Amino acid sequence: MKEKIIRASVTLFEEKGFSATSIQDIADSIGVTKGTFYYYFKTKEQLLMEIHKEYITGLLSRQQAILENGEWSSGEKLRAMIGLLILDIRKNGSSGRVFFREIRHLSQANIGSVTEDRDRFRLNIEAVLREGVESGEFREDLRPDMAAFGILGMANYSYNWFDPEGEVNPDELAAIYAGMVLDGMKSGEGPFRKR
Amino acid sequence: MKEKIIRASVTLFEEKGFSATSIQDIADSIGVTKGTFYYYFKTKEQLLMEIHKEYITGLLSRQQAILENGEWSSGEKLRAMIGLLILDIRKNGSSGRVFFREIRHLSQANIGSVTEDRDRFRLNIEAVLREGVESGEFREDLRPDMAAFGILGMANYSYNWFDPEGEVNPDELAAIYAGMVLDGMKSGEGPFRKR
Repeated sequence: MKEKIIRASVTLFEEKGFSATSIQDIADSIGVTKGTFYYYFKTKEQLLMEIHKEYITGLLSRQQAILENGEWSSGEKLRAMIGLLILDIRKNGSSGRVFFREIRHLSQANIGSVTEDRDRFRLNIEAVLREGVESGEFREDLRPDMAAFGILGMANYSYNWFDPEGEVNPDELAAIYAGMVLDGMKSGEGPFRKR
Repeated sequence: MKEKIIRASVTLFEEKGFSATSIQDIADSIGVTKGTFYYYFKTKEQLLMEIHKEYITGLLSRQQAILENGEWSSGEKLRAMIGLLILDIRKNGSSGRVFFREIRHLSQANIGSVTEDRDRFRLNIEAVLREGVESGEFREDLRPDMAAFGILGMANYSYNWFDPEGEVNPDELAAIYAGMVLDGMKSGEGPFRKR
């Protein structure tokens, strides 16, 4: 039942927003009473917090496994991390969108905890970039901090537009984005490629 | 007064969200009556729509000028377009954030109109990429549609974290991001650069 409440709320929060969705709306949508809701969650905020935690915890543990993969180059790790975010849309697209949009409705203490998790995800990307600079795989003038924000933005934005069932599949999109940031868009010859 | 109402609402919408902000809150925050609000706007939605229009119209006209610049390579145009979004944070950061977050509160007809403007911005980036592929400046296997979404995501995400008064200024960040997608992050030599 708890998982059922979470799934129904994610759908409602995505459609109507967190503020405009009442506990009554959530109860109605799965045909239970408000009492049932309160048996599992003290407040709407606690529910939003569980949605956040469930979402980010899953991502972080899969990211950790990529980070620790000793067989992969930094570029391969980066591609896998981009893939992680993009592939996730199919499964958790709604949670992702609610996650990004509704964080401001959490209390300061909860925002602190969620921000810490999000920062960890970003700092793991930064760690891969730093590792690549140190090994000589990436340009030495690369700024891992700024680049990590950019890559995260590129991948996260796909929650807003990407259709995983469309012409380009999630694996292909991950490869396209990894290729863009690893190899660049300039053609291999001609006056525009400076290297 | 109209502009004053717009500015105050942007601040409130950003802090509390659109749904949780009442017309009374807006009126109170600038010390006027609700009557004054209704003199300029029929509804809160009409106000949100004007915030959107003001924001996107300004961006589009500056983007158009970049697109038509006959002196620039496609790479230079792209860098200028990334710069446009990032530089805008200093001036219109709050409008930008409200723009991205609150679109779902608009009516279907208004969402259509806003989506059209947003698509135009993205399609202008795509046009620059396509032009670069045709001239041979960019790789011929580049997908301008997917790449445009990625670049937009990278630049737009900076609204959530970038401090224009911080250590890296907006021009530098635009150069970093343009460099990443144009030249890639791999080092110029060694086994990792395949070209």
